[in-house]
Amino acid sequence: MFDKLSIPIIQAPMLGATTEAIAIAVSKTGAMGSYAAAGSAPDQILNGVKAIRAATDQPFAVNLFVLDPVDPPPAMVAEAMARLAPWRERYGLPAQSIPNSWAQAFAPQFAALVEAAPPAASFTFGALTRDQARALKARGTYLIGTATTVAEARHWAEIGADAICAQGIEAGGHRGTFLKSMPESSIGTMALVPTIRQAVNLPVIAAGGIMDGAGVAAALALGAVAVQLGSAFLLSEEVTVSAPWRKAIETAPDDPTRLTRAISGRYARGIDNEFMATMRPIEDEIAPYPIQNALTQELRAAATKAGSPDVLSLWAGQAIKLARPGPAARIVEELWADAQAVMRRAAEKYAG
Amino acid sequence: MFDKLSIPIIQAPMLGATTEAIAIAVSKTGAMGSYAAAGSAPDQILNGVKAIRAATDQPFAVNLFVLDPVDPPPAMVAEAMARLAPWRERYGLPAQSIPNSWAQAFAPQFAALVEAAPPAASFTFGALTRDQARALKARGTYLIGTATTVAEARHWAEIGADAICAQGIEAGGHRGTFLKSMPESSIGTMALVPTIRQAVNLPVIAAGGIMDGAGVAAALALGAVAVQLGSAFLLSEEVTVSAPWRKAIETAPDDPTRLTRAISGRYARGIDNEFMATMRPIEDEIAPYPIQNALTQELRAAATKAGSPDVLSLWAGQAIKLARPGPAARIVEELWADAQAVMRRAAEKYAG
Repeated sequence: MFDKLSIPIIQAPMLGATTEAIAIAVSKTGAMGSYAAAGSAPDQILNGVKAIRAATDQPFAVNLFVLDPVDPPPAMVAEAMARLAPWRERYGLPAQSIPNSWAQAFAPQFAALVEAAPPAASFTFGALTRDQARALKARGTYLIGTATTVAEARHWAEIGADAICAQGIEAGGHRGTFLKSMPESSIGTMALVPTIRQAVNLPVIAAGGIMDGAGVAAALALGAVAVQLGSAFLLSEEVTVSAPWRKAIETAPDDPTRLTRAISGRYARGIDNEFMATMRPIEDEIAPYPIQNALTQELRAAATKAGSPDVLSLWAGQAIKLARPGPAARIVEELWADAQAVMRRAAEKYAG
Repeated sequence: MFDKLSIPIIQAPMLGATTEAIAIAVSKTGAMGSYAAAGSAPDQILNGVKAIRAATDQPFAVNLFVLDPVDPPPAMVAEAMARLAPWRERYGLPAQSIPNSWAQAFAPQFAALVEAAPPAASFTFGALTRDQARALKARGTYLIGTATTVAEARHWAEIGADAICAQGIEAGGHRGTFLKSMPESSIGTMALVPTIRQAVNLPVIAAGGIMDGAGVAAALALGAVAVQLGSAFLLSEEVTVSAPWRKAIETAPDDPTRLTRAISGRYARGIDNEFMATMRPIEDEIAPYPIQNALTQELRAAATKAGSPDVLSLWAGQAIKLARPGPAARIVEELWADAQAVMRRAAEKYAG
């Protein structure tokens, strides 16, 4: 797969911040774009893949969240709704009703993905079964599993993944963690990539904290076959980042991010805000993903409309302050030119 | 300072695992050794620096912990002692008495350091005052401040540090954190180095998760002026790592480390063990450093003697499974040859 890329950079799937447009723009440069399809219905996945294929013959990836069906106890939902009531009031929302659906069902999404047979597919939040992996690979799709620990990388290797995306603790947005607790799965990219490489005989994609050409060069030096960047594209022209989110990025203080379960029920990294700070003492009691995620959706939409970052998911990685604006293709090309310059300079200075 | 090194590698100070011997061995290679002097009395510091100077004319660093004098409330000490009582019983120790001293006093240590005037000095756990920085630098000592956040790097820059040691969350042993909480100060090396470089116009030393030549090359690609490795030396011949600690490293499972306050009262990273796991639910209530550290000392000594890792400080970084045995000088030379090979290959493959 990666020998088909002229630039070993992958634009990370970012649900809620991207559409197919950025995947197309990035893949056209010879790097690899990703279509964040976890929120898409099966027919949208088929159409999305068709649209990207029509726009470019370069490789691209489709990303899904591996989710089990949920049927939350009414008391859990009531408690979660009660906690959100004062925040809804702040934004003039009426009393909350139970959503029609908690999340897109994974099984039909996966069936559509297998039918669409994109060049690559990446998965997070969980792992496929061996049969699912076999079905997808039989269609010629390159299978990338997300791992935040060596144990998760081994799990993906056992079910037949073609490559591991090593997601370091620096990464913005949701943690892919699916085997152990968050403190046990908080490994920096600098340690995660080599320990996964030591344990698993598969190509490793490095993700987490990589924002510039120096980071790209560093990740490749670590032995990654490609480097996945998400936050580096959050100020690009193709993203659908809301105005308050964009402003939070542009005006972020030093060391701005925290992990939180408050917004979606799953640990994710974003720029700290009032909602995250207020919920922090009861973070362990928050309803799990996708319950909390569905319940905060209207609230986040209302806050976005009001231009307020207070309750938003301001997803961003630890090095977000290095984000740069511009068209995604130009960002890729600058990242790669800078990375190449760093590599040349390093070899001249230290290994000449 | 760093142009005096023929190898841009620093052996991290590791109190409890090293003596002057490893600093001498490493500095003789053209890399920089460190003498972990935080547990040393003033005259030991003077003698230690003299011994290293007598053995090599290459640069080396002396490391101290910046500590305020402590006078813990008796109730806190009693509570901490009560918690440790069953563990002492396990190792046949008598009822605990209050230690004569909680820690070496910093002021006389610092005075000795200024008198000894080593080529470099690094500090962790806190920052010097501007006057202290001035006094040390007036003696020709190169001043390195440890930072785990951008804010801490700015703090060190303001008091006049010559360089920042950026300690990523991957690092083994004690966190240098001194401004904010641990969740706010848990930044991976891949994000910490570039964000500190962006904020502060000082040379940055990268530390945390770097265990092999690829890691050294990666950290230099990030723009670090030198790379500090500690865990990479934990199996070296010159360390004073106890037998059960060494065995825990050699037999570590996947993803073996956790942060803990249980052993010293300050967050540190080590291979998980029974004591850390048992204390985890009450971690926030543990007496602060150096109280808990002093109170667990006899216990740790007894466990070491018994060959048991159960209550030991098995300090190790997140990539500890990449540690290799051998003389420290050979480890440095292999690390550097491997790093150079990685840099050459990267330039050829990607930037030829």
